[in-house]
Amino acid sequence: MKVVCLQEKLKKAINTVERITGKNINLPILSNILIETDKGRLKISATDLEIGLDVWISAKVEIQGKITVPVSVLSNFIASLPQDKVILETEKTNLKVNCRSFEATIKGLSAEDYPIIPKIDASPLLSYKAKDFHKALSQVHPAASFSDTRPEISGVLFKFTANGDLRLVATDSFRLAEKVLKKAHPLDRDLSLIVPLKTVIEVSRILSDSEKEVKIAIKENQILFDLEDTRLISRLIEGHFPEYDRIIPQEFTTDVEIDKKSLIDAIKMASFFVTKVNDVSLTLVPGKGVDTNSKSQELGEHHSSIKSEVKGEEVKLVFNYRYLIDGLNNVSKSRVVLRANGKERPLAIKGLGDSSYLYIAMPVRDTE
Amino acid sequence: MKVVCLQEKLKKAINTVERITGKNINLPILSNILIETDKGRLKISATDLEIGLDVWISAKVEIQGKITVPVSVLSNFIASLPQDKVILETEKTNLKVNCRSFEATIKGLSAEDYPIIPKIDASPLLSYKAKDFHKALSQVHPAASFSDTRPEISGVLFKFTANGDLRLVATDSFRLAEKVLKKAHPLDRDLSLIVPLKTVIEVSRILSDSEKEVKIAIKENQILFDLEDTRLISRLIEGHFPEYDRIIPQEFTTDVEIDKKSLIDAIKMASFFVTKVNDVSLTLVPGKGVDTNSKSQELGEHHSSIKSEVKGEEVKLVFNYRYLIDGLNNVSKSRVVLRANGKERPLAIKGLGDSSYLYIAMPVRDTE
Repeated sequence: MKVVCLQEKLKKAINTVERITGKNINLPILSNILIETDKGRLKISATDLEIGLDVWISAKVEIQGKITVPVSVLSNFIASLPQDKVILETEKTNLKVNCRSFEATIKGLSAEDYPIIPKIDASPLLSYKAKDFHKALSQVHPAASFSDTRPEISGVLFKFTANGDLRLVATDSFRLAEKVLKKAHPLDRDLSLIVPLKTVIEVSRILSDSEKEVKIAIKENQILFDLEDTRLISRLIEGHFPEYDRIIPQEFTTDVEIDKKSLIDAIKMASFFVTKVNDVSLTLVPGKGVDTNSKSQELGEHHSSIKSEVKGEEVKLVFNYRYLIDGLNNVSKSRVVLRANGKERPLAIKGLGDSSYLYIAMPVRDTE
Repeated sequence: MKVVCLQEKLKKAINTVERITGKNINLPILSNILIETDKGRLKISATDLEIGLDVWISAKVEIQGKITVPVSVLSNFIASLPQDKVILETEKTNLKVNCRSFEATIKGLSAEDYPIIPKIDASPLLSYKAKDFHKALSQVHPAASFSDTRPEISGVLFKFTANGDLRLVATDSFRLAEKVLKKAHPLDRDLSLIVPLKTVIEVSRILSDSEKEVKIAIKENQILFDLEDTRLISRLIEGHFPEYDRIIPQEFTTDVEIDKKSLIDAIKMASFFVTKVNDVSLTLVPGKGVDTNSKSQELGEHHSSIKSEVKGEEVKLVFNYRYLIDGLNNVSKSRVVLRANGKERPLAIKGLGDSSYLYIAMPVRDTE
């Protein structure tokens, strides 16, 4: 292989695929990335056996070929080079890199030993502006479970409904986030898929700075996110996502409209005085506002009041403050609506006038 | 105690003293800071028994008094408050903090139990622009030893010479840095002090964003850095700093003038291909320039060439690359002068036309 490409493009491509690589004792080649000529372009790929990621960059291909090299040393070296032409050339299983008067020879492994990244040739089910889809995923995934003990909630539910909506849902059983994308797909039947959390985070990252459209295709137990010059393919999680509709309260006894930033600030201040369960209490006081309280035997206590419109019954709810902050941060609007349904019952959080996003936080038992 | 002050000033004062506090199993109060009214101002203090730091801020003192509180919770809470008036009020050993509708009660400890921070009333020996003194200290201290096994080099030598110069010197026996401040003091005799590395780092940090003058006074085994509203006092290290003049070479067989950034870039690239001893070689080639090489059995190798003016004999020197980068980074000029005196002999690094700063790096044995 011999190719010439630009340092900036190569650096960006390596950065994109780098996070998929990792140490694997049984398969050390997974800490390498695959560099391969593909017609008139250069393809940079990585896989962790669950996710496969390909990025194409323009290059002048002089001799076709492929090789794998450890990503860390390549990434460091390329990032340090000046913004100029870079020549990549294989010599047996070594990769020679030249840029101006800087030169490196990096020991690699044969591309023949690299795992094959599957392809999906099904036609796309969905096409969406990358930035919008990034935002939708990032509003939902913080509620997903990191734990492997319940694999069916260690991902984000993609629920395609017969009316054309796509619902993105995540929960770790302490909180739940739901984002609805209206008329997003042409399916005329229900279809539910669970996309692994790591995949969602990587896709969200890749889409974040793109002006393009992302196309999504599905085949058997694989999902493809296609962004023209970047393609991520992932396995899906097998299992049944919980019947989450049942835990979304339909009636409310207290209704609050409040400034989001003030509430987040108050909760953060309260968080400095919590016990091990991170407990902060919100008291919704009709005609007055929202009081935030916390108390630590060791450090002291905090109290704040935020004036706001509270209608209905007074109620005191105790939460792990992290769950509240995650939910509030993901509301796009500057004013939020809180809806409670009595002590120790779930609290619903929404942006004022935004019905596309819903966050439910489960209170903890009030031990006072 | 009851005082009113501004959130911004209080936050800055707490941030300044915070780094001096720390966990101490025998004396838990050392993780607290002392808050005390001092005539019309508020004094915030901390000590680790070796360094004492006082910061004064303007405040409206309604009731005099003092208290100590854990710095971490206070610092977090004050930093989260809006930029407005903050009321601090003691209630027995609690500190009540109020700002708009935010309120905290922080559990403290009696100020009577806090260690006394000594005072120095000697007249200052030196007065210098804070920014310039900050720069001088920061050019020197990276060469000091972090280890406690040789306490006499775990600090920076302040060498006041009879001609009025102040020499700041640090070494860890692998490299040495010297900065000369011309006509800096009125002493007509030699005086050498060793200031602990932690003190130098803290002083350098405090001086970095100040437009004021720093005054330095000495009494017995203590040194005072006085910046009007901020005073740091520290013990000195007892012992004799090595006779460092002897290791500064006086004659050179090779002389190089080179672009600093290019050389740093090349050394950084070489650093990705080093063995455990971080070895990078520089070859000074008369009529050509400086070659940088490194090789790792495992990863591969690097080579670069920088065109530059090399006079005298060709020589190859092998260094721990970190020592070279520390020295080059602290040269103020964009062009540097390297002076070598043969294989395995110290290399001198200076800024072109700057005789105030000198860095000496000791090569390692060339094992090739």
